[in-house]
Amino acid sequence: MTLPRVGITLGDPGGVGPEIVLKAFGGDFQLPQAQYVLYGSSSLLKKELKALRLNLPIFIEQRKKRALREALIVHDIPFPSGSAKIGSPSAANGLASFRYFEAAVADARRGELQALVTAPISKASWALAGIRWKGHTDYLSRFYPGAIMAFWSDRFKVALLSHHVSLRNALKKVTRTNLEEFLLSLHRNLKKVRPRGFEFLVAGLNPHAGEEGLFGREEIEIIAPAVKAARKRGLKVSGPHPPDVVFRTALGKENLFVVALYHDQGLIPFKLAAFESGVNVSLGLPFARTSPDHGTAFDIAGKKRANPQSFIEAVRLAVALTLP
Amino acid sequence: MTLPRVGITLGDPGGVGPEIVLKAFGGDFQLPQAQYVLYGSSSLLKKELKALRLNLPIFIEQRKKRALREALIVHDIPFPSGSAKIGSPSAANGLASFRYFEAAVADARRGELQALVTAPISKASWALAGIRWKGHTDYLSRFYPGAIMAFWSDRFKVALLSHHVSLRNALKKVTRTNLEEFLLSLHRNLKKVRPRGFEFLVAGLNPHAGEEGLFGREEIEIIAPAVKAARKRGLKVSGPHPPDVVFRTALGKENLFVVALYHDQGLIPFKLAAFESGVNVSLGLPFARTSPDHGTAFDIAGKKRANPQSFIEAVRLAVALTLP
Repeated sequence: MTLPRVGITLGDPGGVGPEIVLKAFGGDFQLPQAQYVLYGSSSLLKKELKALRLNLPIFIEQRKKRALREALIVHDIPFPSGSAKIGSPSAANGLASFRYFEAAVADARRGELQALVTAPISKASWALAGIRWKGHTDYLSRFYPGAIMAFWSDRFKVALLSHHVSLRNALKKVTRTNLEEFLLSLHRNLKKVRPRGFEFLVAGLNPHAGEEGLFGREEIEIIAPAVKAARKRGLKVSGPHPPDVVFRTALGKENLFVVALYHDQGLIPFKLAAFESGVNVSLGLPFARTSPDHGTAFDIAGKKRANPQSFIEAVRLAVALTLP
Repeated sequence: MTLPRVGITLGDPGGVGPEIVLKAFGGDFQLPQAQYVLYGSSSLLKKELKALRLNLPIFIEQRKKRALREALIVHDIPFPSGSAKIGSPSAANGLASFRYFEAAVADARRGELQALVTAPISKASWALAGIRWKGHTDYLSRFYPGAIMAFWSDRFKVALLSHHVSLRNALKKVTRTNLEEFLLSLHRNLKKVRPRGFEFLVAGLNPHAGEEGLFGREEIEIIAPAVKAARKRGLKVSGPHPPDVVFRTALGKENLFVVALYHDQGLIPFKLAAFESGVNVSLGLPFARTSPDHGTAFDIAGKKRANPQSFIEAVRLAVALTLP
């Protein structure tokens, strides 16, 4: 069996990205068997390893040379200028983190990586560097407009029918066709992780799932028919469920997956229940892509207090998603 | 000092209402000093007290007769027919619970009660009984269309700008005037509970609170100006905050109160974080009204397993809200 090749991007050098990545690979954590390649600047890595007093051999990737078994392979992308500014957004950090990500995505698109785990970038740093993309998801949606944004934790799992659009526009995307296709795509993509499949709980759009048409008719006219159609295609799926009940229903149930109809319907409960342990996953790409569900945490950057747990969960899930 | 007179309604006789009410008054709980009057059927109460083996003297309210100090005063409303059906909706139970509530509200409207605590009713029972109101809140909104629905727990507190309308219509209610008036009314009503006032955190409407207009302009055109105007009127208020962050910010902070712009924005996190310990409160009425944040729990009715904690919290908050 060939090991999957998994790209890791270092994230914003001024945030906690370098610390959590090196703690994850240089610590006593059980990471799944894979060939990991870290996209980052070797100069920063050496400095960070020293600061963290970690003894992790790194190997700068070169043609025709093989790394030692225990070394972390680094796809070196030189830092644009001087040293990185820690703890706040900066143009140099924005440019660097964009280049790490751009190079890794290019390799993934060429099929050289089966999975990609991204440490947090700063949208403000990207803006300072003049990058026109708003963030990872925005950049990926350029190539894969049908990508699904999902959030994963042992509290619950949720996929979003739409994400970075206004609530007004999110309502327009709640159509029977969209929802049915979304459910089928979600089911197809998740089969790798759980061959028996997940059971999907579709949230309603309106309070109490419309209370039989009294507070909106989308449940009757759109959601119930889409759920029924997906069930006919063999999916285990139910709904519409009252939105303020469905997340509690899914809590701690490993085989359940909630489908939220708009960004905050899924993310308000996810960030409340699974803060700093959750994983963000993009589905529907030709490669797996995950990231920890926290940001650069500028306030604790450089203080050696960052917790790598969510990043480690992101690595585990990414490798699981590469399984055939 | 005259004690406040607090009405309690027994709720659906087939649910956990009678059990939690009698456990609260007949148990070893510290309830605040008040003159409590229970609106219910004395025949059911006697039966339930026996089943629960509680030794709580009850006194059927009569003109010119004063109850013993330790007795629970009962405003007796005869049960319509035979005995109550336990564990599922029924027309007789619906009619009974409606009459308890109707009588208590009438007394409160006449100024004879300063507060009202309602045990859970079944909307299905009300429908079976042919009651045209959907529930407590719906009935109250007949008299008090400007009532504010808020949810209270030690995890966090949240008030809803709108409640039982479709999400589409809830969006239409997000106007500068509505929000500003809502904030002022909320502030006025909460002063009784906390004379120093609360600090209000107003949630945004769109993902990431619109991300500077990129995902919707309501934050810029409506919410920020309303917050600014309310601040000029002396309120401690901030926002719009990213909806998937604001509840986490408020978690455990006694002085913070979140303002949610639609039903599920507030209730999804509330039901997840404060299940079975939360209190539902109606503000902006001439009397205080609270209820436990759980339903009739038909599945455990009659099994003596119901937990009175949320009801007790509802009683405590109701009395606190009557303070001058």
